[in-house]
Amino acid sequence: MTAPSRVLALSGGVGGARLAWGLASVLPADKLTVAVNVGDDFEHLGLPICPDLDTVVYTLAGVVNREQGWGRADETWGTLEELRALGAESWFLLGDRDIAVHLLRRQLLSAGCSLSQATQTIAQQLGVATRVVPVTDAPLRTRVHTAGDGVLGFQDYFVRRRCAPALKSLEFEGASAAQPSPGVLEALADPALSGIIVCPSNPYLSVAPMLAVSGLRAALRAARVPVIAVSPIVGGQAIKGPTAKIMRELGVEPSAAVIAELYSDFVDCVIVDECDAAQVAGDPRFAVAHTVMRDDDGRSALARACLQCLEQLRTDGRRSSARQITSGITCG
Amino acid sequence: MTAPSRVLALSGGVGGARLAWGLASVLPADKLTVAVNVGDDFEHLGLPICPDLDTVVYTLAGVVNREQGWGRADETWGTLEELRALGAESWFLLGDRDIAVHLLRRQLLSAGCSLSQATQTIAQQLGVATRVVPVTDAPLRTRVHTAGDGVLGFQDYFVRRRCAPALKSLEFEGASAAQPSPGVLEALADPALSGIIVCPSNPYLSVAPMLAVSGLRAALRAARVPVIAVSPIVGGQAIKGPTAKIMRELGVEPSAAVIAELYSDFVDCVIVDECDAAQVAGDPRFAVAHTVMRDDDGRSALARACLQCLEQLRTDGRRSSARQITSGITCG
Repeated sequence: MTAPSRVLALSGGVGGARLAWGLASVLPADKLTVAVNVGDDFEHLGLPICPDLDTVVYTLAGVVNREQGWGRADETWGTLEELRALGAESWFLLGDRDIAVHLLRRQLLSAGCSLSQATQTIAQQLGVATRVVPVTDAPLRTRVHTAGDGVLGFQDYFVRRRCAPALKSLEFEGASAAQPSPGVLEALADPALSGIIVCPSNPYLSVAPMLAVSGLRAALRAARVPVIAVSPIVGGQAIKGPTAKIMRELGVEPSAAVIAELYSDFVDCVIVDECDAAQVAGDPRFAVAHTVMRDDDGRSALARACLQCLEQLRTDGRRSSARQITSGITCG
Repeated sequence: MTAPSRVLALSGGVGGARLAWGLASVLPADKLTVAVNVGDDFEHLGLPICPDLDTVVYTLAGVVNREQGWGRADETWGTLEELRALGAESWFLLGDRDIAVHLLRRQLLSAGCSLSQATQTIAQQLGVATRVVPVTDAPLRTRVHTAGDGVLGFQDYFVRRRCAPALKSLEFEGASAAQPSPGVLEALADPALSGIIVCPSNPYLSVAPMLAVSGLRAALRAARVPVIAVSPIVGGQAIKGPTAKIMRELGVEPSAAVIAELYSDFVDCVIVDECDAAQVAGDPRFAVAHTVMRDDDGRSALARACLQCLEQLRTDGRRSSARQITSGITCG
């Protein structure tokens, strides 16, 4: 296998971050751009919080809490304890080390840096060589329309209410005015780009807000390189998070086939886990790999499987024929 | 001795906070208002930091670090450690519990609360019954004109440079537009007010910015109740902080007499430490007490001495005769 010259990965939080780590472990640092969802971002107690960006950066830096997949290892909770004692809002788990990152980000943004620039500084300070960029520098905020609780801010739905309200549809506030960030545009325009990977992230909460960024979905559709996705659904369940629950609320049975449909207009191949091999046998829209990343080796192995899949698609000249021109199921 | 009906104390940080604690220990909660310097306040990493207000509130709440006199007992430093690791500004010592207070204050101020209201909420949450108010709700910022380092923000001078630059003069930015806070005005207008105490705080860095608030010095001068000050200079030295150093830089020999001169237009009596009794013997501008507050008993004892002094001044009818009508030495 020839190492691909440049890869663009689209990632949400935990699952995406793990594959991003795998890709970073098998690709030279300058051959990978990880574009990250910002729909979850919010300001809390005056701190600019970017959960997915921080999860990706912490994971790549090796300072993430590996058990939970987000937040810092060796975290302390002095501020949160005191916020509780003060009767202040404490539903969002702000660790002390995490707060330092938010404070630095606030300072950088206040000094006029874009979110891309702030992210780059934070990543560099944490020793991350891979290029991690927000999918857009513009404010894009996911709002969750629920069956019984009205319209909720993302973190209100996701953290405060632990995804309990039934999801009816999603709204990506600011998306139509949001342009892809310079790092995304640069990767897409790079003649050396050899493939695009949609990480195994929640298609509704993590990938859809990225696809909602003005022109991005069309750019993926028009890309001259193969685009693949790794299904976050394994054996009818999500490895982590509410993907399967949300699918059921939207009236679809959780399966890799749903992922393929959601991304049908721009994805050439969806990689499903070995346990779902029988489901997709003979279907050219799918490839099979071990997608459950239990450890570092598992992450690197899945990354290699993704690169092999991209290479195979290039070799087969599959790009134009495999893409469907229907626009795929959109959220809500 | 009859307990005075209401006392207004003007306080800076550590020394003032200790006398405020003493006053709170001997007066009913509703008989004491502590007005606190805000000239040291600044925004740092986006956090609204009010060092003197927090020192007074922490001291009254019994959660202060007693050895250093400021900051929290049982403090942790996760955020600061991480700020250092990130290469962010870490010269200002932000403890994790302390940060929680700044985050709550930011939220309250962003929600439209005045600094008085935010301070009241924080004090209440920490169990402080005494009324602690900023001397003004307006932005008032002390700027330090130095001999060789130009004009410095207060914390840049005080913390970052540890008061090393020679002080030439002080500027209280925003003071002329700053009105006394509602709590100060209410205390001054209270018919039950029986005395005003200037705590043993740095006369230049802590008391002068309070006196610079529009109309406040004139109100102290015009007050119909006795006004006393406790000298922060003991045996030619300051108990804590750079008061003596600054006096020398301004060309005066550190002594209680300088304090009396600085406050001569509105103070009826300066309480000096017993070790300086000989210096002030026979001078009606002074009274003697044990002013070094080594423990809780020392704080309460000094508070009682202050109340006795106020009572004596009332009994003697000394208020009008003792005040001098010259305006006193002003800073710089």
